Amino acid sequence: MPEGRPAHVPDDGLTTRQRRVRPLVIVHTGAGKGKSTAAFGLALRAWNQGWPIGVFQFVKSAKWRVGEERALRTLGASGEGGPVTWHKMGEGWSWIQRDPGSQAAQAAEGWAQIARDLAAQTYRLYVLDEFTYPVKWGWVDVDEVVSVLAARPGSQHVVITGRDAHPKLVARADLVTEMTKVKHPMDSGQKGQKGIEW
Amino acid sequence: MPEGRPAHVPDDGLTTRQRRVRPLVIVHTGAGKGKSTAAFGLALRAWNQGWPIGVFQFVKSAKWRVGEERALRTLGASGEGGPVTWHKMGEGWSWIQRDPGSQAAQAAEGWAQIARDLAAQTYRLYVLDEFTYPVKWGWVDVDEVVSVLAARPGSQHVVITGRDAHPKLVARADLVTEMTKVKHPMDSGQKGQKGIEW
Repeated sequence: MPEGRPAHVPDDGLTTRQRRVRPLVIVHTGAGKGKSTAAFGLALRAWNQGWPIGVFQFVKSAKWRVGEERALRTLGASGEGGPVTWHKMGEGWSWIQRDPGSQAAQAAEGWAQIARDLAAQTYRLYVLDEFTYPVKWGWVDVDEVVSVLAARPGSQHVVITGRDAHPKLVARADLVTEMTKVKHPMDSGQKGQKGIEW
Repeated sequence: MPEGRPAHVPDDGLTTRQRRVRPLVIVHTGAGKGKSTAAFGLALRAWNQGWPIGVFQFVKSAKWRVGEERALRTLGASGEGGPVTWHKMGEGWSWIQRDPGSQAAQAAEGWAQIARDLAAQTYRLYVLDEFTYPVKWGWVDVDEVVSVLAARPGSQHVVITGRDAHPKLVARADLVTEMTKVKHPMDSGQKGQKGIEW
């Protein structure tokens, strides 16, 4: 795909350089495949820029994303690009030592940490994997998410993945892509397989 | 996203194990972002499985995908997962020593090498990045692509990215996802920026 050119140059008083470093909220949603893989593919670009990357996995099973986690951890430890920090809800967030409690409580703990990290500018790219679900289920308040994202300082990009992104999240996001299923092998009885689904 | 269950179990005489190793042709198409990043995200899973990965970049500029290339090369060289081989059309394919000739001739050379590699089972995952364009433009014959893919031996997965995937390619593919643009910052004058577009 050719590098895009803006449809028009806005009369906002910003220089091209300023516009080039505008921090983005990116949402990958829809029923198709590729929402999370595209987020981790984006993380490769961030890693190459030397940016600190924080991954927050809002998934029940600690077994999901094993390939992505091992790859990103290997890259982060290589000393070549940016460092990578990986947080998993599935086995209890690492910063919570007590009993994690309900899924809803865990999700809220995860979001609280993200809000702290955004305030402290801990990372330059945040991958909030499957974060649309706790928002959809009301475990995390969407208005708070939107206001924390809007108020985040510095140049921090945030990528949120998952189906059924909340309309307020979509409204606030800068870049929204819907992954649409055209054809999926599970429709014809194919089971998930290694190297593809995990 | 929960791991999918098949909509029905087909009466094809295959065991679950056989169905688990069915090699896939995957297409990421559409006007939205995430087609290539999702392919490289998938490559992380393949790398974690120890699979040899072959990337064929059908792009004009050798500068594109620098982040993905550096990350995948670093992973491939780490000795932890599968090896990675990266081929770029933009600077002339590495196996072609003479003048590369026209874009069309280069694309045809790229496809010829892929066909040889598929016959030899050189890789387990092939990423044919931006390959829809040479097919669309007739530089590579779509019927030949479809028949070579259909006849490929062993367990080789092929991911093809790019807009406007040829209908015959879509018909032959096992998994097709369309990345649909819901909202893009370039619509409001944002320029491409490092760590996001490259």
